Amino acid sequence: MSEQREQRVLDALEQSRRRPPKFTAPRIDMSHGAGGKATHKLIEGLLLPAFNNPALAPLSDAALLPFGDAQLAMTTDSFVVRPLVFPGGSIGELAVNGTVNDLAVSGATPIGLSAALIIEEGLETEVLTHEVEAMANAAARAGVSIATGDTKVVERGKGDGLYVITTGVGVADPECVFSTASVRPGDKILCSGTIGDHGAAILIARGDLELEAEVLSDTQPLTPLVKALKDAAGSELRFMRDPTRGGVGTVLNELARDSGYGVAMWEERLPIRDVVHGACEILGIDPLYVANEGKLLAIVSSEAADAALEALRNTDGGEDSQIIGEIREEPARMVLMHTGFGGTRMIDMLVGDPLPRIC
Amino acid sequence: MSEQREQRVLDALEQSRRRPPKFTAPRIDMSHGAGGKATHKLIEGLLLPAFNNPALAPLSDAALLPFGDAQLAMTTDSFVVRPLVFPGGSIGELAVNGTVNDLAVSGATPIGLSAALIIEEGLETEVLTHEVEAMANAAARAGVSIATGDTKVVERGKGDGLYVITTGVGVADPECVFSTASVRPGDKILCSGTIGDHGAAILIARGDLELEAEVLSDTQPLTPLVKALKDAAGSELRFMRDPTRGGVGTVLNELARDSGYGVAMWEERLPIRDVVHGACEILGIDPLYVANEGKLLAIVSSEAADAALEALRNTDGGEDSQIIGEIREEPARMVLMHTGFGGTRMIDMLVGDPLPRIC
Repeated sequence: MSEQREQRVLDALEQSRRRPPKFTAPRIDMSHGAGGKATHKLIEGLLLPAFNNPALAPLSDAALLPFGDAQLAMTTDSFVVRPLVFPGGSIGELAVNGTVNDLAVSGATPIGLSAALIIEEGLETEVLTHEVEAMANAAARAGVSIATGDTKVVERGKGDGLYVITTGVGVADPECVFSTASVRPGDKILCSGTIGDHGAAILIARGDLELEAEVLSDTQPLTPLVKALKDAAGSELRFMRDPTRGGVGTVLNELARDSGYGVAMWEERLPIRDVVHGACEILGIDPLYVANEGKLLAIVSSEAADAALEALRNTDGGEDSQIIGEIREEPARMVLMHTGFGGTRMIDMLVGDPLPRIC
Repeated sequence: MSEQREQRVLDALEQSRRRPPKFTAPRIDMSHGAGGKATHKLIEGLLLPAFNNPALAPLSDAALLPFGDAQLAMTTDSFVVRPLVFPGGSIGELAVNGTVNDLAVSGATPIGLSAALIIEEGLETEVLTHEVEAMANAAARAGVSIATGDTKVVERGKGDGLYVITTGVGVADPECVFSTASVRPGDKILCSGTIGDHGAAILIARGDLELEAEVLSDTQPLTPLVKALKDAAGSELRFMRDPTRGGVGTVLNELARDSGYGVAMWEERLPIRDVVHGACEILGIDPLYVANEGKLLAIVSSEAADAALEALRNTDGGEDSQIIGEIREEPARMVLMHTGFGGTRMIDMLVGDPLPRIC
């Protein structure tokens, strides 16, 4: 088994060598910011070769940097969501939770955040105050402080009111070495609740859809859910990600590609609200690609999966958790969905950008 | 003397309590991003009260966070300069040097950077590639790696091509506790070279001025200059800052306010290029408020000042260093310029924003 595994990793490596990624687009378009195929091409074809270094190479949610005897986790994210305020949250809350969550799913304990604000000339002070308070409240809720910041103002017409860029540093837990390399066939895939809520909330708030129903963004810190999982599954917890931009479909495709294994999902087990289903149908997009901002995907060994599920369901914000799939030997490097009618379909990387400026 | 000093600090504290800053502007305007009086009001009247925490309070270039037995320095900066490429540098180089320098003047050794890119739809890949390579080269020159990043794309017309946001973390040197509280009357103020070069280079590159002469931005990592100063002055080195947005005038005003002492400057000692003087005269602004991106202001004891000056002058990028002023008992909390004609004038905080989007 160990030899098979080794061969898989070698095969994956060789394949990536045979096909060095190239970034051939002459201009950047919206799809390059969508978190799917085009974003990967931009990152792997242009950014990685230039910034080439061991910390960046794994491309996980947070980089690990040596600091004395310990390891420091570092992560950054820009938030350019429109509108600034939406049902269930706002850009300031999102910016803090997003970075706290990237640290949390890396198994790190946050020790500080930085916040950079790029403000459009003419922004009402009331709007700015709301966002600054939302950031402070979210930071307090996550038990971390905003330790440093920067403020720039750009001319009217540039900047859409406010962009918020947060960076987080944390202490990496030496006990938690989460990696796609530790994933094994038979492992279960847990999802901590309904998917697509954040993206659907933004779309409805923009008025792009004529829907009466209200969907709230799921923005929340994942720290309590991560703690519950760690306590319940211990070293049987292999890997975690928060399926933000690009959604569950993108994270599982990355997992399949990076582990060399196949991912199987059961459509009937996916927790999706009816109204999110409805919104996605109108738009002709799959909720699997819609962003979440308070959900966790976790890979847990088959033995520990039920206890982990129970722990998630007993934690605030994890009540609707489900085991949505499992890791299999085949089809290697692919994501297969078992549909309700006994059929199957491939879930590929997101192409294009059906949902711009969602986070 | 020690009692006098204590009284000064108490006075300054009491005064700041008597006049709690208020942010009363109904909207954000360009002056709030200029680094002068309006920026201070925004930070002290709106951001600090919300984000209130011990790491943020000192408002230095980098926040210090406890990490095991050590201290972690953290700093962030957004770069929104127009044009993206200018004589002597470009936004990518600036973004890396700026954050490296904030760590350096805090006495910290950089261990990693994050980079967030907000790209305008339609940006030529060639332009992006140039900036990504400029970032990589600047990072290599400063001996630090770009460990993590994020990429967002905003619609055409939003974003001016590219905004770059860098955050840096470093190990704080326990031997170097730089603070305005350690500054004493008689200490000398050293400036590591000609002032206003970066701001003037940007203005000329924008074509706002009809000047034939070329001025190069001074963007460079300050790490070698900081090392030379530390080696030469040891514990006689009291405090350092890099006079970026807001220029030398703003940094010295902050120093006067925070230390409770007066700052005296000699106009004839200020190293300013003729062409920068000329550009500033046309615009009716004082080069003291023009941004630098590769200059250092250092406060050094009177005894160590000459050795420190010599060390700076013998280091690449510090050849034009000068002792430009000194700390005095009076006038408390003010900056006084001794002009060439035996007169004096007050140097106040920058009001308004004569030079938008300079960094």
